[in-house]
Amino acid sequence: MERQAVGQELAPLLIELVDLALTAKQAHWNVSGMWFRQLHTQLDVLADDLRLWSDDVAERLTTIGVAADARVETVAARTPFASFPSGSIDSTKVASLIVERLEKVVENNQTRIAKLGVVDLVTQELVIGITGGLQKQEWMFAAEQPGRPA
Amino acid sequence: MERQAVGQELAPLLIELVDLALTAKQAHWNVSGMWFRQLHTQLDVLADDLRLWSDDVAERLTTIGVAADARVETVAARTPFASFPSGSIDSTKVASLIVERLEKVVENNQTRIAKLGVVDLVTQELVIGITGGLQKQEWMFAAEQPGRPA
Amino acid sequence: MERQAVGQELAPLLIELVDLALTAKQAHWNVSGMWFRQLHTQLDVLADDLRLWSDDVAERLTTIGVAADARVETVAARTPFASFPSGSIDSTKVASLIVERLEKVVENNQTRIAKLGVVDLVTQELVIGITGGLQKQEWMFAAEQPGRPA
Amino acid sequence: MERQAVGQELAPLLIELVDLALTAKQAHWNVSGMWFRQLHTQLDVLADDLRLWSDDVAERLTTIGVAADARVETVAARTPFASFPSGSIDSTKVASLIVERLEKVVENNQTRIAKLGVVDLVTQELVIGITGGLQKQEWMFAAEQPGRPA
Amino acid sequence: MERQAVGQELAPLLIELVDLALTAKQAHWNVSGMWFRQLHTQLDVLADDLRLWSDDVAERLTTIGVAADARVETVAARTPFASFPSGSIDSTKVASLIVERLEKVVENNQTRIAKLGVVDLVTQELVIGITGGLQKQEWMFAAEQPGRPA
Amino acid sequence: MERQAVGQELAPLLIELVDLALTAKQAHWNVSGMWFRQLHTQLDVLADDLRLWSDDVAERLTTIGVAADARVETVAARTPFASFPSGSIDSTKVASLIVERLEKVVENNQTRIAKLGVVDLVTQELVIGITGGLQKQEWMFAAEQPGRPA
Amino acid sequence: MERQAVGQELAPLLIELVDLALTAKQAHWNVSGMWFRQLHTQLDVLADDLRLWSDDVAERLTTIGVAADARVETVAARTPFASFPSGSIDSTKVASLIVERLEKVVENNQTRIAKLGVVDLVTQELVIGITGGLQKQEWMFAAEQPGRPA
Amino acid sequence: MERQAVGQELAPLLIELVDLALTAKQAHWNVSGMWFRQLHTQLDVLADDLRLWSDDVAERLTTIGVAADARVETVAARTPFASFPSGSIDSTKVASLIVERLEKVVENNQTRIAKLGVVDLVTQELVIGITGGLQKQEWMFAAEQPGRPA
Amino acid sequence: MERQAVGQELAPLLIELVDLALTAKQAHWNVSGMWFRQLHTQLDVLADDLRLWSDDVAERLTTIGVAADARVETVAARTPFASFPSGSIDSTKVASLIVERLEKVVENNQTRIAKLGVVDLVTQELVIGITGGLQKQEWMFAAEQPGRPA
Amino acid sequence: MERQAVGQELAPLLIELVDLALTAKQAHWNVSGMWFRQLHTQLDVLADDLRLWSDDVAERLTTIGVAADARVETVAARTPFASFPSGSIDSTKVASLIVERLEKVVENNQTRIAKLGVVDLVTQELVIGITGGLQKQEWMFAAEQPGRPA
Amino acid sequence: MERQAVGQELAPLLIELVDLALTAKQAHWNVSGMWFRQLHTQLDVLADDLRLWSDDVAERLTTIGVAADARVETVAARTPFASFPSGSIDSTKVASLIVERLEKVVENNQTRIAKLGVVDLVTQELVIGITGGLQKQEWMFAAEQPGRPA
Amino acid sequence: MERQAVGQELAPLLIELVDLALTAKQAHWNVSGMWFRQLHTQLDVLADDLRLWSDDVAERLTTIGVAADARVETVAARTPFASFPSGSIDSTKVASLIVERLEKVVENNQTRIAKLGVVDLVTQELVIGITGGLQKQEWMFAAEQPGRPA
Repeated sequence: MERQAVGQELAPLLIELVDLALTAKQAHWNVSGMWFRQLHTQLDVLADDLRLWSDDVAERLTTIGVAADARVETVAARTPFASFPSGSIDSTKVASLIVERLEKVVENNQTRIAKLGVVDLVTQELVIGITGGLQKQEWMFAAEQPGRPA
Repeated sequence: MERQAVGQELAPLLIELVDLALTAKQAHWNVSGMWFRQLHTQLDVLADDLRLWSDDVAERLTTIGVAADARVETVAARTPFASFPSGSIDSTKVASLIVERLEKVVENNQTRIAKLGVVDLVTQELVIGITGGLQKQEWMFAAEQPGRPA
Repeated sequence: MERQAVGQELAPLLIELVDLALTAKQAHWNVSGMWFRQLHTQLDVLADDLRLWSDDVAERLTTIGVAADARVETVAARTPFASFPSGSIDSTKVASLIVERLEKVVENNQTRIAKLGVVDLVTQELVIGITGGLQKQEWMFAAEQPGRPA
Repeated sequence: MERQAVGQELAPLLIELVDLALTAKQAHWNVSGMWFRQLHTQLDVLADDLRLWSDDVAERLTTIGVAADARVETVAARTPFASFPSGSIDSTKVASLIVERLEKVVENNQTRIAKLGVVDLVTQELVIGITGGLQKQEWMFAAEQPGRPA
Repeated sequence: MERQAVGQELAPLLIELVDLALTAKQAHWNVSGMWFRQLHTQLDVLADDLRLWSDDVAERLTTIGVAADARVETVAARTPFASFPSGSIDSTKVASLIVERLEKVVENNQTRIAKLGVVDLVTQELVIGITGGLQKQEWMFAAEQPGRPA
Repeated sequence: MERQAVGQELAPLLIELVDLALTAKQAHWNVSGMWFRQLHTQLDVLADDLRLWSDDVAERLTTIGVAADARVETVAARTPFASFPSGSIDSTKVASLIVERLEKVVENNQTRIAKLGVVDLVTQELVIGITGGLQKQEWMFAAEQPGRPA
Repeated sequence: MERQAVGQELAPLLIELVDLALTAKQAHWNVSGMWFRQLHTQLDVLADDLRLWSDDVAERLTTIGVAADARVETVAARTPFASFPSGSIDSTKVASLIVERLEKVVENNQTRIAKLGVVDLVTQELVIGITGGLQKQEWMFAAEQPGRPA
Repeated sequence: MERQAVGQELAPLLIELVDLALTAKQAHWNVSGMWFRQLHTQLDVLADDLRLWSDDVAERLTTIGVAADARVETVAARTPFASFPSGSIDSTKVASLIVERLEKVVENNQTRIAKLGVVDLVTQELVIGITGGLQKQEWMFAAEQPGRPA
Repeated sequence: MERQAVGQELAPLLIELVDLALTAKQAHWNVSGMWFRQLHTQLDVLADDLRLWSDDVAERLTTIGVAADARVETVAARTPFASFPSGSIDSTKVASLIVERLEKVVENNQTRIAKLGVVDLVTQELVIGITGGLQKQEWMFAAEQPGRPA
Repeated sequence: MERQAVGQELAPLLIELVDLALTAKQAHWNVSGMWFRQLHTQLDVLADDLRLWSDDVAERLTTIGVAADARVETVAARTPFASFPSGSIDSTKVASLIVERLEKVVENNQTRIAKLGVVDLVTQELVIGITGGLQKQEWMFAAEQPGRPA
Repeated sequence: MERQAVGQELAPLLIELVDLALTAKQAHWNVSGMWFRQLHTQLDVLADDLRLWSDDVAERLTTIGVAADARVETVAARTPFASFPSGSIDSTKVASLIVERLEKVVENNQTRIAKLGVVDLVTQELVIGITGGLQKQEWMFAAEQPGRPA
Repeated sequence: MERQAVGQELAPLLIELVDLALTAKQAHWNVSGMWFRQLHTQLDVLADDLRLWSDDVAERLTTIGVAADARVETVAARTPFASFPSGSIDSTKVASLIVERLEKVVENNQTRIAKLGVVDLVTQELVIGITGGLQKQEWMFAAEQPGRPA
């Protein structure tokens, strides 16, 4: 196993997952409108998943001997995501904001999975599992986008 | 109830709790040394408490009509805490790093409790409850500081 | 107890319940639109109820000495229901598709209950219990039909 | 502790909570329309909270030596709430009907909390806790009002 | 199924169950004397049963298309029960007050069961089940009446 | 927070709670007579509450930096309670023995709550919560005193 | 281990425990009077204990190669207990009827324990454990006998 | 409800269920042979069902004002069942011994259900429910009889 | 990820799992003979596994944007399995009927796993996991085939 | 059984266990230093064990007809243990303080077990069981003594 | 207590229990034939019991100050059991292989119990308890031996 | 799938896991010193993991048709690990003894994963999962090695 090669894939994934967990909570608190309850609950489930996955990624980093770094200043500096809107968010607008972020991590993971297949199959399996979970979450928010063709 | 006055006390408390939760996780992953297991577990319990408290504070903010803001860039910009050390941390050094941070929130809360007593007793009770919890956590980490007089 | 008379009522009920359980799952997977989450969950609860009821009916058949038959080709051949639409279904259209199917089983059960009252009160009680459950499910989907007069 | 002064605050609160619990159940049974399931569930959670709080208030009354009275004729005679509409209620109209009632109890409690602060801090804490819970419920229904500015 | 005929049996039963649940709670709070604890607990179990049964009856009403009505003013106006005594009640006097009320509902249900047997067997079964439960509760309170011949 | 002032209120409360827990157990073991089972159970619930409260008070003492002291010789020396009767106790005599002890702690706590309001609101809230619990226990034993006016 | 010697001690114990379990249930159903609820519950706990103990004794018999016999005609023929009164039993008379039966088994077990100490310590330990349980049950019923000196 | 008519149906059913529960335990302890474990477990489940049903029947008797009687001498005198074989029973012979006994109760219940339909529908429903359960148990033992035609 | 290529592997797997779940239930109801209980239980566990796996496969299809289709007519038309025998099945004949069907899915999955390895590793991992589960089930039924060489 | 002889062994054991439970709590609250968390938890487990054992001993005393006495003044007067140090205790010093106390009870119990073997085997078994538990606790604290030869 | 004398009885018992646990697992994995499922489950329950008992024995050894030794080479060298057959084992042959091993430990324990009665009653009780458990397991396997006389 | 090739990878892994589970228990019983409790617990968690993994590996062997062999003489003969030290082990020395053993299995598994990737992806996934678990355990023990650079 090549430690640095593995660390280069996992470290940014950790940043993305921790930022998304904060974002899911932010939306959980500020969503408003007729679908409030549905989304308030769904976002909390998403946040729970993201926290579990970030824990798994961080502990895998430490396990392979690379220090995990998800301090707030690190996440703020390295996150690839644009700022999530502040204040109240209408319940019809939440889904697409979440979908585009989940999509980006899934996309990044495709490359990571390919690279990890060469250097560490144990880490690759971890990222495959997380990617499957992210895609399922993405489907369930995408299904709720207004104007989505049935 | 004066909404803005209440919001001015809760908003920074939310920032502090969210940052501390990230810090507790950071230490949970990177602690190392003979007391590893004791601290690895204790820091996870602390992170769980901090997450529950930040959820309560954020939902109280929304309840009184002030938008909660704990996005990563907001927390990074407004947190009162200096950077937590990166990389592996010796298990004999964790306690004091945590204690000084908990102490600061407790200190800030003393003022907040006083101010809230004038404007909103419901919010005051929430902050009193969190402060009691923070002080108990502070005691249990302080007890583990090396060289602490018995 | 007249075994054949009882079997003639239960055997088609088993077919209807097994087909409806497959239908509920089909809708659970393919529903889409703003009410996705609400219906995705509700359809799973319905499928669970239908599976429990079909188990009770099939075991009652075996208990009275008539072989239960819910093999896929039997269900496909004998089901009274028209084909459920394939592909994605808009969340505003699910309720009426489910209601009309539940209504049909309830209607059939009215006759079955009357006939069973003459030949086997134990089986009658089973069908009465299932009918009450089907009617409750029907109410909860009917309540969600768009354009329904309040 | 001045028993009568405390009783004068708690007795009407008990009336309000018991009436609201009956109202929440009434709406739970009669709500109808596209958001049926979301509100059917949410109203049941509200009813459970209200029943627990009314139990706490009634037992506090007995504890301080004032007989609790929540017999149906007492509640009907003393409730401050106008009649809840009979019959089926559209799911887009439930939220505001609930919000206005919760708001009234919260408002009444502000005065009660102030008065209790002078005569009995134990009872005051009970009413502060219930008020926090009522405000959280109010937020979650208010968030679902149609036409609510995000 | 004749909807109105069914509704005519269930609607007054709902009133009786909701009033009795309030009465059971009233007695639960105000009972006093040497058998306090035994009755305080037993009355709470009774209230729980009555609440579950009233929920079943109200949802059956909605299911068959008749609006349930258990608003406080409706219950107060239509309840067949005389006023329950206010204030503290000696623990030796509770049993007979409860027994006479349970007895009345059981008696009313005998007629209801007979009428429902003609119009809707599903509803009949529901009322039979509730009646069995009411009779069991009646036995357990009747057993505690002072001076009861062994 | 003035550490010594807080400690002066909590230290004697700890003594009272620990002594009462021993007393509740003593009565739990030695009660006898027709109401044995009711009181045997009720006293165990009381002992559990008292143990939890004494744990909270002792840990609050340590948290604020005052050593908790509930060693047997300390409790024996400082308890304000007269000796509980030795040997078997008739079940009609237990209630008043418990009530008078609970009453005394409640009375002492009134002063403590007032004093703590000036020096530490977190500790005050703890004592308010314990006092509410003690009063509820007092009510439930007082209700069982023979000859108690209904 | 001497199989027959062990069987001679266990077989009559099995008879006694099975008869007592039937007796406890008989009293559980027919008790009546002011202490009904207390005894109704207590007798059910006793029946559960007796059933567990009879299961242990019967399986020990089979384990050592002696066929257990607790068929109804065997128990009726060999039970050492006089007939339990038929019909309703006043709640003040239950305790002594139960105590005298428990006392007899405890007495018989003293001899059995002594004999088993010579032939099989495993079986002896089983009977010692059951005897401890019987004595505890005996105490708790004896405590409820009217006129019992405190 | 005609109390004596109901009692005449339930009293012998109670005898049958209590005797069968003792029989199921007798077989549970003494079964032996290759299918031991399967039957040892299955007979325990049967005994549990029979005990629950006998409790329901006995409490229904008391509820309607007829004293339940399942004392060992009553059961031994009135049971309709021939003696169950003593000693070890081969696992291939258990099923038919159990089936013939269950069959007899089911047969008796057919008449009872008919008679109860005239005098008390609540009791009839209880007996219908028990009969359904007995028939299911009968099927599962009958399925295990050697030489049973598939 | 090539959506159509993935869908072509998963769609037939869904058909096979849904048909097998119906088959497992069919056998669960109709098995008969000395090993009835063992197989009745084992087939239910198998049905539960198959239902969970079909849910995972169908939701993966929807996640990748291919509509899942497991309607009864689709399953009947596309299932690769010959008709399962109708009526009662001897318990010695069940194992081989199940084994040959499980074997076929495992065999098909070998090809699917290979193809999915090229187009989507997330879906491949899902199919690998299901295949491991199918093989374990296959072993446990195969172990029970009569005449199987030890 | 000779009641007084048994009481003479159990009464002082009750004193020792109650005092040790208070001591374990005292240490649980006041331990401090690097091994704080390990000992804080371990001492709570010890206190729970001691409370359960003291309950068993006290109820055995009552069962045999000797009044249990663990009032605070009795325990303070009769405890054989020297005063436990007041104030904060370093985590490296706790183990030996606990070990010497546990050792003493174990030593006393050796004599008690011998004496009880002559007068009451049921009580002897209780004390044997407690002694095994005390020795296991002693081992786990002894293992943590600094300077202990491995 | 004579430490070496106790150790001489427990050390070989530990070896026997650990070897038997490995054997139970070996049979659990390799059993095959018509009774597969029954034995596969039963052997796992046996392995769980043996692991718990070996843990108790090893911790008792450490408690009395004798180092437990159940390293693989020690167990292999000192086990009194002949090699368990390798490879697949027919389900009709498992029982006797297990019974003969259990019988041997039971036999050895008879001597151990006698010797321990002289030196340490706490350890004796532990071995008595384990022996009772081993005998019960032995019965349940012995009951399944083919050709066993009923 | 090439059965023999798969078996050649899994059989030695089974040996290693079973030996390590015995070693973890050996250390669990014999660890001693200031970190006793931390390691006593941690080693038990490790033993549980190892037992679950060895069960999975052995059942996979049987599933693919290769007899699992983890009899004590096989494990002793084929284990690659040097003898674990006998007797008491200081708590500062446990970590490195465990780490070096875990490291060896992880190293062996790297080769096994590579070989299995060619012959059986289902087995490969099982070994990848176990390897991830072993590495996580290795990290948590390695973190506790004295003198480990932070």
